[in-house]
Amino acid sequence: MTDELSFHMTADQFRSYGNEVVAWIADYYERIESLPVLSNVQPGQIRSQLPARPPQHGEEFGQILNDLNRVILPGVTHWQSPNFFAYFPANGSGPGILGDMISSALGVQGMLWATSPSCTELETHVLDWLVPMLGLPEKFSSSTAGGGVIQDTASSATLCAMLAARERASNYAINLEGCTGKLVAYTSTQAHSSLEKAAMIAGIGLNNLRLVEVDENFAIKAELLEAQVQRDRNAGLIPFFVCGTVGTTSSNAMDPLTDIAEICRRYELWFHVDAAMSGTAMLCPEFRHFQQGVEYGDSYCFNPHKWMFTNFDCDCFYVADRAALIRTLSILPEYLKNQATESGAVFDYRDWQIPLGRRFRSLKLWFVIRHYGIEGLQYHIRQHIALAHSFAEWVRQDNRFDVVAPVPLNLVCFRYRGDDEDNQRLMDRLNRSGDLYLTHTKLNDRMVLRLCVGQTNTTKRHVEKAWGRIREEATKLEAEGKSAATTR
Amino acid sequence: MTDELSFHMTADQFRSYGNEVVAWIADYYERIESLPVLSNVQPGQIRSQLPARPPQHGEEFGQILNDLNRVILPGVTHWQSPNFFAYFPANGSGPGILGDMISSALGVQGMLWATSPSCTELETHVLDWLVPMLGLPEKFSSSTAGGGVIQDTASSATLCAMLAARERASNYAINLEGCTGKLVAYTSTQAHSSLEKAAMIAGIGLNNLRLVEVDENFAIKAELLEAQVQRDRNAGLIPFFVCGTVGTTSSNAMDPLTDIAEICRRYELWFHVDAAMSGTAMLCPEFRHFQQGVEYGDSYCFNPHKWMFTNFDCDCFYVADRAALIRTLSILPEYLKNQATESGAVFDYRDWQIPLGRRFRSLKLWFVIRHYGIEGLQYHIRQHIALAHSFAEWVRQDNRFDVVAPVPLNLVCFRYRGDDEDNQRLMDRLNRSGDLYLTHTKLNDRMVLRLCVGQTNTTKRHVEKAWGRIREEATKLEAEGKSAATTR
Repeated sequence: MTDELSFHMTADQFRSYGNEVVAWIADYYERIESLPVLSNVQPGQIRSQLPARPPQHGEEFGQILNDLNRVILPGVTHWQSPNFFAYFPANGSGPGILGDMISSALGVQGMLWATSPSCTELETHVLDWLVPMLGLPEKFSSSTAGGGVIQDTASSATLCAMLAARERASNYAINLEGCTGKLVAYTSTQAHSSLEKAAMIAGIGLNNLRLVEVDENFAIKAELLEAQVQRDRNAGLIPFFVCGTVGTTSSNAMDPLTDIAEICRRYELWFHVDAAMSGTAMLCPEFRHFQQGVEYGDSYCFNPHKWMFTNFDCDCFYVADRAALIRTLSILPEYLKNQATESGAVFDYRDWQIPLGRRFRSLKLWFVIRHYGIEGLQYHIRQHIALAHSFAEWVRQDNRFDVVAPVPLNLVCFRYRGDDEDNQRLMDRLNRSGDLYLTHTKLNDRMVLRLCVGQTNTTKRHVEKAWGRIREEATKLEAEGKSAATTR
Repeated sequence: MTDELSFHMTADQFRSYGNEVVAWIADYYERIESLPVLSNVQPGQIRSQLPARPPQHGEEFGQILNDLNRVILPGVTHWQSPNFFAYFPANGSGPGILGDMISSALGVQGMLWATSPSCTELETHVLDWLVPMLGLPEKFSSSTAGGGVIQDTASSATLCAMLAARERASNYAINLEGCTGKLVAYTSTQAHSSLEKAAMIAGIGLNNLRLVEVDENFAIKAELLEAQVQRDRNAGLIPFFVCGTVGTTSSNAMDPLTDIAEICRRYELWFHVDAAMSGTAMLCPEFRHFQQGVEYGDSYCFNPHKWMFTNFDCDCFYVADRAALIRTLSILPEYLKNQATESGAVFDYRDWQIPLGRRFRSLKLWFVIRHYGIEGLQYHIRQHIALAHSFAEWVRQDNRFDVVAPVPLNLVCFRYRGDDEDNQRLMDRLNRSGDLYLTHTKLNDRMVLRLCVGQTNTTKRHVEKAWGRIREEATKLEAEGKSAATTR
């Protein structure tokens, strides 16, 4: 056997190609506003340009980059464009990308403390930093009985919370015996779809997830929650879990956490708080009133990968009683046994999540916090919120449009004064133009447009342009007689 | 409001810092052999060097890189060192790192086809490429009723398979009604711990997961599997799922897939095949006899992030009946509705996995396959397997050591001819030396050392050195009279 032949990229090649990629990325961000935000390709169009069979022989790196530009990029929707106002953002930043690159290069597995101590300890440390940064209760800090861990998404965090709740409620019997079908979970009609998915996965069943009605601001009605819990108890069922939301996906509604917490205390329910996007706003003390009551939570999550300049995936999940989480998710086969684990002096984050393997994700979060400092993060979050409030004001001042939900932070739900079809037509035209991208929801059974200000590089100019384009397209629709607002 | 102030990294700063990071990575790989493979820090040592509070003001990028070197690196276990022989590998490569960097920079969400068509289509396409590359059945290709998707890990893939099986067996009732506690799953005593975790999470219960005994080669005994299925049926339980393994984690044992498949056919059980590490070997036709029977699988997974030079996370999960998977995991809230989804012409990968959000992971896999070509991948896999076989031969020729399990591919399970303590002592000394890193397992209740050849840059020189160090430490132990092999 000879070791002479190698197909690996050499260190010198990596230096050269790596610098090309860095330049590609910098150029991409410099020209991103010239690209249509929403890709307009048809289904199958990207695949039709790719060879049917994989290459037998290796190809030049330049050829791969060419195809990235030629084939892949036209099918990309530019989530990092400052004209992206759709869904919730999934923003990123230079320090985040570079921290993530080092994570890719180190390629360590953080399943156990012992498999790379820095991966575990930096994660614990940065998540402890975030507790006072966000005004979260000290009980979520690792110096108490609680602690934080990075999950991929809020969906997974919610599932972990529901599983820990399920086990606590069953005295850790379901992990052994399987579900019995008597447990009931609660959230509002406006909560994220991941609650439904978690109830399905965890064997609770969708029919045992109660979606409680909301008030005129789309926040859960605590009195209805309590009445439902009582009804279920009376029916012989076992209420075990409530999820309250700080900023729902549909309209950024704020659930009354303190009221929910009181019900959870009274009926011994696990209280999970989902602040996936809006949690980032709590970097600024003036917005923390929206999370009042989080101090009673059994668990909490927010996503730096949504609004805190830390590229996907990075959800921060906290529990007040880490022993309950670990007992729920722990498995220790022989081949993972080691002295550090047996000493009990370390966290093995494998026991805090669904998968076994885990990436060194705290690096990018550490890079972001250190690059911006609390000051820099606060500044940009305040800017985004102020821009959303300006936008809402402009909408209110135009009598063709209505703001249809409260605007606590950076999401504006608004409606063009035609029917649903007019709003759909307006949105489709705007999105097809490539100038901006926004999405919709339904509130009170009516189609509503959503504009969320949260992309890293969005500034006043972009929001002004968006509003100009929205007005312009509305005017065109009216001129064409295609709007019910003018024809009826 | 002014838009003038900004804390963001500029494009020019990104060019400069990005090139520094590229150089850092290239240098890291050039000096990696000078670093102790296994970090020797104590619990808390890394954290003690980090400031207790986050920075109020942003810091210089150079300062962050300094701390990476000074604080973080000593706590890193170098999974990318060619002297890493522990666990299963989690290897990476230049093209993988660069593809991943572009994924970080694009920062797209691939939850729906519509949210970035290239993210979905490239993934489908590359996973279709892998079907003939690995000799997998055509039914796993997206041109049939099946298809592939990238998951984070085999743990998550196994969970998805078990959930789809659970729903198919219950006629999709458990998603609605919750588990009933009558379903029973099966695997061998040697299967991965993720099977136990999946049974817990899915509400099946550990007591309803049967760990079937194995033969002298640590492969499941099919006749015992069938007898157990029959017993459970006779007891009124509902067998629904079997996992067979191509290359168990403990000893790389190969389950008899064809025999398992026949039992699954007869009793209508979902058959999942877990080839997490060893699946990569099937790039080489001469090893495909180990996966004979995979053509009967309902689902299958392998991890390019283990042995195929694609940095974590990247598990490829295939199903023969994608409708069963999608029906199991589908949720469609209003804010995610769109025309492409409604047309039915596209895949929305959100419905193929646990989380909602997803990263553009196919880029790194595409970069790897194009850089190496089939030829390059085959060459390095064959080298690793040949090196493991050489190592096994050296062990066999030294009368102080035994090879204690078959060596089908790249893992050698061996034992030093003392007692368990001697083997533990030998392993601890080797690992503490920093010269190499290997881990252990238990087979037939005895401690066994495992040496797995799979790190990207491992060549003959490294395996020779490892064997030299193992012999050297054994000789020292004997000279010190600390080995039962000499003292008893």
